[in-house]
Amino acid sequence: MVEKQKKMNARKTFAIGIDLGATTIKAGIVEKNGNIPDQLSADSKANRGPAVVIQQMIFVIQELLGRRKIAECSGIGIGAPGVISLTDGTVQHPPNFADWTKVDVGKQIRKAFKLPVFVENDANCAAMAEARYGAGIEFKDFLFVIWGTGVGGGIILDRKIYRGPHGGAGEIGHISIDYNGHRCNCGNYGCIESYIGQRYLSQRTKEIILSLPRDGTTSKIELLVNGKLDKINPAIISEAAEEGDATAITVLEEAGSLLGCALSSIMNVLDLRVVVIGGGVSAAPAFVYKAIIANIRDRILKPHKEGVRVIRAKLENNAGIVGAASLVL
Amino acid sequence: MVEKQKKMNARKTFAIGIDLGATTIKAGIVEKNGNIPDQLSADSKANRGPAVVIQQMIFVIQELLGRRKIAECSGIGIGAPGVISLTDGTVQHPPNFADWTKVDVGKQIRKAFKLPVFVENDANCAAMAEARYGAGIEFKDFLFVIWGTGVGGGIILDRKIYRGPHGGAGEIGHISIDYNGHRCNCGNYGCIESYIGQRYLSQRTKEIILSLPRDGTTSKIELLVNGKLDKINPAIISEAAEEGDATAITVLEEAGSLLGCALSSIMNVLDLRVVVIGGGVSAAPAFVYKAIIANIRDRILKPHKEGVRVIRAKLENNAGIVGAASLVL
Repeated sequence: MVEKQKKMNARKTFAIGIDLGATTIKAGIVEKNGNIPDQLSADSKANRGPAVVIQQMIFVIQELLGRRKIAECSGIGIGAPGVISLTDGTVQHPPNFADWTKVDVGKQIRKAFKLPVFVENDANCAAMAEARYGAGIEFKDFLFVIWGTGVGGGIILDRKIYRGPHGGAGEIGHISIDYNGHRCNCGNYGCIESYIGQRYLSQRTKEIILSLPRDGTTSKIELLVNGKLDKINPAIISEAAEEGDATAITVLEEAGSLLGCALSSIMNVLDLRVVVIGGGVSAAPAFVYKAIIANIRDRILKPHKEGVRVIRAKLENNAGIVGAASLVL
Repeated sequence: MVEKQKKMNARKTFAIGIDLGATTIKAGIVEKNGNIPDQLSADSKANRGPAVVIQQMIFVIQELLGRRKIAECSGIGIGAPGVISLTDGTVQHPPNFADWTKVDVGKQIRKAFKLPVFVENDANCAAMAEARYGAGIEFKDFLFVIWGTGVGGGIILDRKIYRGPHGGAGEIGHISIDYNGHRCNCGNYGCIESYIGQRYLSQRTKEIILSLPRDGTTSKIELLVNGKLDKINPAIISEAAEEGDATAITVLEEAGSLLGCALSSIMNVLDLRVVVIGGGVSAAPAFVYKAIIANIRDRILKPHKEGVRVIRAKLENNAGIVGAASLVL
């Protein structure tokens, strides 16, 4: 029996990884070495309720499985936003999904495919992907930060994800850097997310541009968005910064410094030295990373200074798929 | 052989716990249930260099062992300030110890007594004591805060201490609650320790009293210190607060609120709900705990709100001894 099982397992060459987002479902065939030989995506139709979203997931999985031998699939891993129960695979309150309180995603997908299914928080999936196949591969312990619309993350301890006693760990965006500071969406004051999240960065850039003297010069950012300041986003700000735009450089340097402050607090408490940064804003120019590191070095406790590293994530958009698949692999 | 070993172990009824402080060495016979049937203390003579301190420790241990059968002693546990190496029992840079860089405390005590010796950070010892025998006994995971001269602590995960990859975890006092705030002794800005540590609380109280209108009334605090404002300390402030003194209440309530802010950040990141508070200032009146809890409830992420508890440590001055002994027991 054991021999037979071993043979069966040896035949399993891939897993399906699903990255469930409010806009798009990204899915891929993921091999044991983290390669994605085949991937596709579909509209998640999150505004149409859970049944439609699950149906979209099933379509995508069917399509991928149709291209391979199902006997070679070791299972399906799903990364989802919201609060995830690891025991029963339910997904609660994912932001921007209509009519979604608590849905047993794991059970429904398992029923559809008769394959092992695991569900995990999307930020944790990305953290695991970087730990196993990405920028974190050489570090046993690190903090993974997703810097995008909001600020999230995951904590890798001894090469495993730290989930916390209730599965809610890693909310790096909700460290307050000023007890009297900006009001955050979460209700608290001064959360780092409310200073460096995508919306805030874009808004702050717009405000600086509007406050500049109208002396006939036009900032590079204005040119990049054809004067439509509501189109400003971190990619535009990064591009302008690369071209030397003073406003863009100021905004991103400030953001890096503040992120360094939040990170040094958590590095002091958890005794961590390494930070891997992913998410949309992580594509920012190298000077932003320098600002983060300089601030951490200034702020962290002396015995913790040695070995401080802040590095860019490697897997980019595929971290979600690879991390989800790694739940099974 | 196994039977013989079992019999030997059954005869081990106690351990020696040592709490090494810069002023006093506290030591006790600690039984398996955490009881301390016998304890004593000695001047640590920390200003006279490591050799003298070690000699003081040896005297104290000899005295305690002289009162019992050495065959019943399972070993010696030592809680020390500074950076501790768990592997070789060295103690580095304990604050307020003269001429002390790195000393192999574990090795020297082991040599003197031919007994198993374990050395651990003092805050971690106190946290373990509360986890095994004190206020944390019913909680698998909690944050332990030592609120005294400074602010320190330990993180208990799954009933074990979380040391971090380099043994430096739990520096709860060095969470910054204001990136532009008070300059902390550590060099950072806004560390919670620089707002609520003993010295700061006493200084802040003194400043408020000095700013009060001289209208013939005298604050209860002034009466308690006979007008010598430099004698103000948290015990005095607590006493005055219990008697309804407005200044004392203001200072302690502010401190509780700020501590709540720092704690909610770390509870968000680590997914913890329970905080146990020890150290000198933990004797503060119940309204301080209410301020801490109210602030955490206002600030913590919604899914983390359920089950938030902030409780006073139970073992008080003996936590260090019991925790050190628990390294062996």
